[in-house]
Amino acid sequence: MKHGKGIIPAVIGGGSWGTALVKLFSHNQREVNWWIRSCQNRHYIAEHRRNPDYLSYLELNLQRISVSCDLNEVLSKSDMIVIAVPAAFIRETFSKVPAADLRNKIVISAVKGIIPGDNLTVSNWLKKEYGIPEDQLGIIAGPCHSEEVAMEKLSFLTLAFHDIEKAEYLKRMLECHFMRISISPDVKGIEYASVLKNIYAIAAGICVGLGYGDNFMSVLAAHSVRELRSFLDHINTLKRDVNNSAYLGDLLVTSYSKFSRNRTLGSMIGKGYSPRSSMMEIKMVAEGYYAAQAIHFISAGMEIELPVVETVYNILYLNHPAMDAMASLSNKIQ
Amino acid sequence: MKHGKGIIPAVIGGGSWGTALVKLFSHNQREVNWWIRSCQNRHYIAEHRRNPDYLSYLELNLQRISVSCDLNEVLSKSDMIVIAVPAAFIRETFSKVPAADLRNKIVISAVKGIIPGDNLTVSNWLKKEYGIPEDQLGIIAGPCHSEEVAMEKLSFLTLAFHDIEKAEYLKRMLECHFMRISISPDVKGIEYASVLKNIYAIAAGICVGLGYGDNFMSVLAAHSVRELRSFLDHINTLKRDVNNSAYLGDLLVTSYSKFSRNRTLGSMIGKGYSPRSSMMEIKMVAEGYYAAQAIHFISAGMEIELPVVETVYNILYLNHPAMDAMASLSNKIQ
Repeated sequence: MKHGKGIIPAVIGGGSWGTALVKLFSHNQREVNWWIRSCQNRHYIAEHRRNPDYLSYLELNLQRISVSCDLNEVLSKSDMIVIAVPAAFIRETFSKVPAADLRNKIVISAVKGIIPGDNLTVSNWLKKEYGIPEDQLGIIAGPCHSEEVAMEKLSFLTLAFHDIEKAEYLKRMLECHFMRISISPDVKGIEYASVLKNIYAIAAGICVGLGYGDNFMSVLAAHSVRELRSFLDHINTLKRDVNNSAYLGDLLVTSYSKFSRNRTLGSMIGKGYSPRSSMMEIKMVAEGYYAAQAIHFISAGMEIELPVVETVYNILYLNHPAMDAMASLSNKIQ
Repeated sequence: MKHGKGIIPAVIGGGSWGTALVKLFSHNQREVNWWIRSCQNRHYIAEHRRNPDYLSYLELNLQRISVSCDLNEVLSKSDMIVIAVPAAFIRETFSKVPAADLRNKIVISAVKGIIPGDNLTVSNWLKKEYGIPEDQLGIIAGPCHSEEVAMEKLSFLTLAFHDIEKAEYLKRMLECHFMRISISPDVKGIEYASVLKNIYAIAAGICVGLGYGDNFMSVLAAHSVRELRSFLDHINTLKRDVNNSAYLGDLLVTSYSKFSRNRTLGSMIGKGYSPRSSMMEIKMVAEGYYAAQAIHFISAGMEIELPVVETVYNILYLNHPAMDAMASLSNKIQ
């Protein structure tokens, strides 16, 4: 790894999390390359210094941000690649990127989803498709809504890396007066926790939509974190405290915040909208929608019970009526 | 213990939790004696079937509820005494109750506070003052806001008893279509958790009042449950899962719900009101106010760090400015 100012980061993705990450990198007097899919939006940003689609109240410092809609160009001039594209679009986004373009680069997933079809976490997909070695891989995890990063509200990120030295380096790049950063070696656990929490947020939203109260919500959240723990313990036996911010905190902010798109998706379903029309309405990708199916399949062979995941899966994919499914769930948890 | 219909319960206290418990007992075709301090309110309830001060939208079934402002009379005709008086008023409430009046009765605390001055939990105070044996004592704990019990929203209670048979009996008395009940042997742990969660809710409220966002709130909540765990592990070594509803769930509903008076107290303090004027304004007892002082003293000799408890104590009792104290706390937790 090169040290010092030589390391140029790139953020891949023009959604709200990508936009917030670009703000973070550029906040700290740091140059950052930014790939966004829409060339039209690139022109808009160049002219108005705002992302027209996401966090549009945020003024971007274009003296430090180089925006491009040419992915190969962005990759070629960057040393550290932060992926912030919805998991469902990653394969398509990287379809014209040869393995050589990512060789010797640090590749970091800020995605909180599973590659659909493959049912692989992003880091596993990067290992499999690009042969990126573990010590070049990292995860940026929450608990952190991009909206509050844009507002410079005090927030916390967790960096999960096998190579702690790289995490320390990225930490120095991102830390500032509104951003505190923790480091963890639990790459796999934190990546899965980031995925599962979106399913739990959909469940929370469904309950809100159905009219359940705060009492039940707290029981659901407490059960969800225990369910998450049993899943993670099954994935690997690394000693972790699931009550740390990257696990419990992220689950809470996603389940309780009005900024959570997964909770919003669930809330619409609870109110009677179909999953499909809810997804169209919120105009952003709710990763939990795909994650529910992926975790359903991934956990099929495990001898653990994930009643919340299964309930969300049944509602989203098997058309179980939300009211009946949640009533049934409420009999299984406590 | 007498079995069957012979056991007559009494609820001691006319606040919102006492009112909700009376509703619960009477819901299940069960007679219940109810002591309220105000004889004037007793007349109002007899005439209008509503508690004028708390949950006044709730219509009470007076065919099953015998209301009295004579505590000795209520105790004498009841076998199971459920105390739902704010901890700060318990000593005064029971000042004219001789030990004989509670002899051979099941005495249950539904209080989520510490007796000020003595710094004793209610069950410890009952043991010390009334010599009530452990197997006659029990706890009714959350996660459960009385407002949602009144609305018949699905809720969960936890009964903590040394004598599980008594808990099973009470469970049958209280369980109904909107109330699920768990049983635990962790009397001491759950009683302390019910106390500490109010302090954590005040901290959460202060952050809301100061303008912290959802990201930080989730970090605070995750830290709080770890802090709670280390306190409980120090109190006794009973094996418990702090992510069960009676601990984490109760902490969450108290920290996140708009019905939480402790969160409301904190929110006013965060906005700049003094603790005293905030307490007067919310017109209900926020147990966390007294608990912060009690736990500060109780934990003084323990070799554990409770930064959230200490921050709330410093704000409430040492006049530390909330903004500075929370900024300092945010540097200590993650």
